[in-house]
Amino acid sequence: MIIDGKAIAAEVEEETRARIKELADRGIKPGLVTILVGENPASQIYVRIKHSACDRVGIRSENLNLPKDVSQEELLEAIRGLNKRDDVHGILLQLPLPEGLNPASAMATIDPIKDVDGFHPLNMGSLLAGAERLVPCTPKGIIHTLDRLGVNLEGSEVVIVGHSNVVGKPLAAMMLNRNATVQVCHVFTKDLAAHTRQAEILVVAAGVPGLIKKEMVRNGAYVFDVGTTKVGDKIVGDVDFEPVMEVAKGVTPVPGGVGPLTVSMLLSQTVTACEMQTEEK
Amino acid sequence: MIIDGKAIAAEVEEETRARIKELADRGIKPGLVTILVGENPASQIYVRIKHSACDRVGIRSENLNLPKDVSQEELLEAIRGLNKRDDVHGILLQLPLPEGLNPASAMATIDPIKDVDGFHPLNMGSLLAGAERLVPCTPKGIIHTLDRLGVNLEGSEVVIVGHSNVVGKPLAAMMLNRNATVQVCHVFTKDLAAHTRQAEILVVAAGVPGLIKKEMVRNGAYVFDVGTTKVGDKIVGDVDFEPVMEVAKGVTPVPGGVGPLTVSMLLSQTVTACEMQTEEK
Repeated sequence: MIIDGKAIAAEVEEETRARIKELADRGIKPGLVTILVGENPASQIYVRIKHSACDRVGIRSENLNLPKDVSQEELLEAIRGLNKRDDVHGILLQLPLPEGLNPASAMATIDPIKDVDGFHPLNMGSLLAGAERLVPCTPKGIIHTLDRLGVNLEGSEVVIVGHSNVVGKPLAAMMLNRNATVQVCHVFTKDLAAHTRQAEILVVAAGVPGLIKKEMVRNGAYVFDVGTTKVGDKIVGDVDFEPVMEVAKGVTPVPGGVGPLTVSMLLSQTVTACEMQTEEK
Repeated sequence: MIIDGKAIAAEVEEETRARIKELADRGIKPGLVTILVGENPASQIYVRIKHSACDRVGIRSENLNLPKDVSQEELLEAIRGLNKRDDVHGILLQLPLPEGLNPASAMATIDPIKDVDGFHPLNMGSLLAGAERLVPCTPKGIIHTLDRLGVNLEGSEVVIVGHSNVVGKPLAAMMLNRNATVQVCHVFTKDLAAHTRQAEILVVAAGVPGLIKKEMVRNGAYVFDVGTTKVGDKIVGDVDFEPVMEVAKGVTPVPGGVGPLTVSMLLSQTVTACEMQTEEK
């Protein structure tokens, strides 16, 4: 089975539209501002994808484009300004930042209740402690998909390849919060296949095309391919898709898998942030 | 080899004393306040152990004993008062709290820079993101011990049994920050032995006496026993000590292993908190 990220994302968008309608009935329209520093072409594309997704569901969106030589203090000042605006419910700082800017201090400056990417340390800490609020979108999309597929996470064997702050570490914490048994591997792991072969759920976020071969995958596993590497004109994942499909129960394609799921979670969390900020007392 | 927690803790205390002397040269004395709510006998003992450790190294310590029927708001008010006091550099809320009180909101009320237990969500989030500041003391003590033993964590196979907020989850994040391959198991894990046998470093924090038998331990592993269960008059750990000693390279005893290490980290972090708060500009 191909796990159709686009189709699941479309369902999430449908639910998000319904929530936006309820907000509209109270005279509220959710607003997202993306901050793009410099002119990284990949980042420009990602930002454009997010804005067009906002358009589809009815989230008002703006992009704040700062010059690549902006100072750290000017960046923080811009964020503080957005924190104060009542019509801005979500703030997304597009990464990576140009050399010389400190992403951690920028992310920590975003008001935690507007932190729709879930990277603020306060939100990351609540996540680690099991009180999930706004959480990173890719892990959330993967867990949402497993829920839709009816997979019981409690006691399941989860193996994550990659230990980034964006995917691996927060996903590990979220899986533990759901009582999965969790393994996290990465470039320093000595025998990767020995680990991946144990996985009932395998999530690969390494950025290494073709890393995961058929013989590294357990029969009947669900495989999530978070990798996106540009090879020539094409975007390719970390999983050797066709052969792995022969043994796995389900695999997300690249493109059309984890990418759309991530974007749909961003929309959903922007609405959640808006709901939290406009909650009726 | 018995991993002598007491001896390593004594070394940490010695280093801590030297740092306290440097502070004294600047006219500063670190201060710790413990908050004990109610009269749980085990908690009373733990608090007493911490105060006597403070005495040994020269940290001024106080205990604030609140009645067991204190309201949440009164508890938060007490914490806020301590946050404001310049002579208090560390605040430790002894857990568990009596029924009806919310520990998460209390811990989130402690000024993060005075959070010597490392449980504030901001500190937990920084930890998860790889920027460790004040961190939970038991995980810190285990990592410190491995450093002292000269164990290279990068690429090592770490298995943690137990996924609590106090030990398992923060330790997993700290091990990932050091590029270990990490597995986290717990009561929902289907085949615990299949996991523990993979461990070069095995940390057990399950609270189940005798859980870890010899045949569950890999040859040459380091085993940390975080369990403390009262059985009759004795405190026992989770590891079947004598038989496991036959296969392991090193095992922490209970008592005299992880306990003293944890207390020594509390002292060290109280001084770190004091140094951060009194840093010369």
